[in-house]
Amino acid sequence: MDQEALGSVVLLAIVTLISVVQNDQTLSVFLTAFFASKVEHESKHCNGKGFQRPGSSAFDRVYTANQNCGHAYPTFLAVLWCAGLLCSQAPAAFAGLMYLFVRQKYFVGYLGERTQSTPGYLFGKRIILFLFLMSVAGILNYYLIFFFGSDFEMHIKTITGAISPLLLIP
Amino acid sequence: MDQEALGSVVLLAIVTLISVVQNDQTLSVFLTAFFASKVEHESKHCNGKGFQRPGSSAFDRVYTANQNCGHAYPTFLAVLWCAGLLCSQAPAAFAGLMYLFVRQKYFVGYLGERTQSTPGYLFGKRIILFLFLMSVAGILNYYLIFFFGSDFEMHIKTITGAISPLLLIP
Amino acid sequence: MDQEALGSVVLLAIVTLISVVQNDQTLSVFLTAFFASKVEHESKHCNGKGFQRPGSSAFDRVYTANQNCGHAYPTFLAVLWCAGLLCSQAPAAFAGLMYLFVRQKYFVGYLGERTQSTPGYLFGKRIILFLFLMSVAGILNYYLIFFFGSDFEMHIKTITGAISPLLLIP
Repeated sequence: MDQEALGSVVLLAIVTLISVVQNDQTLSVFLTAFFASKVEHESKHCNGKGFQRPGSSAFDRVYTANQNCGHAYPTFLAVLWCAGLLCSQAPAAFAGLMYLFVRQKYFVGYLGERTQSTPGYLFGKRIILFLFLMSVAGILNYYLIFFFGSDFEMHIKTITGAISPLLLIP
Repeated sequence: MDQEALGSVVLLAIVTLISVVQNDQTLSVFLTAFFASKVEHESKHCNGKGFQRPGSSAFDRVYTANQNCGHAYPTFLAVLWCAGLLCSQAPAAFAGLMYLFVRQKYFVGYLGERTQSTPGYLFGKRIILFLFLMSVAGILNYYLIFFFGSDFEMHIKTITGAISPLLLIP
Repeated sequence: MDQEALGSVVLLAIVTLISVVQNDQTLSVFLTAFFASKVEHESKHCNGKGFQRPGSSAFDRVYTANQNCGHAYPTFLAVLWCAGLLCSQAPAAFAGLMYLFVRQKYFVGYLGERTQSTPGYLFGKRIILFLFLMSVAGILNYYLIFFFGSDFEMHIKTITGAISPLLLIP
């Protein structure tokens, strides 16, 4: 790709690469817990202490957290790139970075001992919604140019740039 | 991206955004069933009525349907974008839309009570095959131009545009 | 897309299509095993021989292999396309092809009977790392051009082209 086309995706690529590193970390935690659970299960089986009650073990929590993160990942990538390509790159990359922070917090919080207050099964809904609305705005703007010749791209970029810091509010 | 490059991906982006909304719906159904199953399990455990027979509960069906849809999603996205970029955008977006309809029907049908007639474990094979063949046709066309200088792009676009309505046949 | 832009992604698209075919094969093996396991389970249940010991059945092995492959797939696609677009196409496509070979070997090895020597839970780490470093090199090069005007693209392409055959070493 030439320099100009590269410039329009480089921030998105950086966020994607960070998410890959995070995926890898998450997978490592999962596999460590998997091995530990295997060993625990085997020892329990040999001692004949009966079946493990499902839903209570640490492994189950890690497994659920890993499943949730894994299922949401392709959706996140699709929305991130759509928002970045169709609308504005910098706010999309910022929102993607916020999503990765929230995911890290979610995964760490899930492994905590407080089973009473599991931090919900969904996370980062607000950020995904923001990226989704950015994509929709970009598509609407394309059709406005196509049919009416009026370009609101600068306004949309200003607005999304102004709204994106609001994602920092917890 | 400039207006022209945007025009060549805008339909694909729209289909991707619709699929994201559908993913979200599917996930909501799954999580509702997950909570219901948890509660049911706990109450059964407390009453000491024994273990739930696996494979028979409503949760198992939802879980399997969700797993199947989730696993097929990255494959679908990859084939959709390859077909749209390499060959022709409009038929690819149409086929993607058909796939989303079939997936909706599949998921709803899976949750039905008729365990005798589960609607199979695979869905939309014909649509994925169509998108795959479109991608292959686009790649072949690229190499034909590269080596022989003969361009069949118009013919391929006409053919795929003519075939795509056949996907409507159930 | 025009011919030139198509030329910069065609190899990546070919690797992606091969990976889709492989996904499909993997899914077929998984579903065959799933049906077999269902039947086996039902017959065992009816004969009242008690519960199946988890972790020992062939289905569990297939299930784990399928889960591992499925979870790593979006990560692989993201790194492959980032490396191909940001840095150099041919070495990235070659590395992607190597990854698919390793995955095939991993999946087949997983289904083998030697439970003592399961071939690890992670695979292709070296290839993913290579693609990741290629992406990072491409991003660094972009910022070097942007800030200093010095272009190392040719050197990076030469180096990655020279290193990529090393991935053949098992």
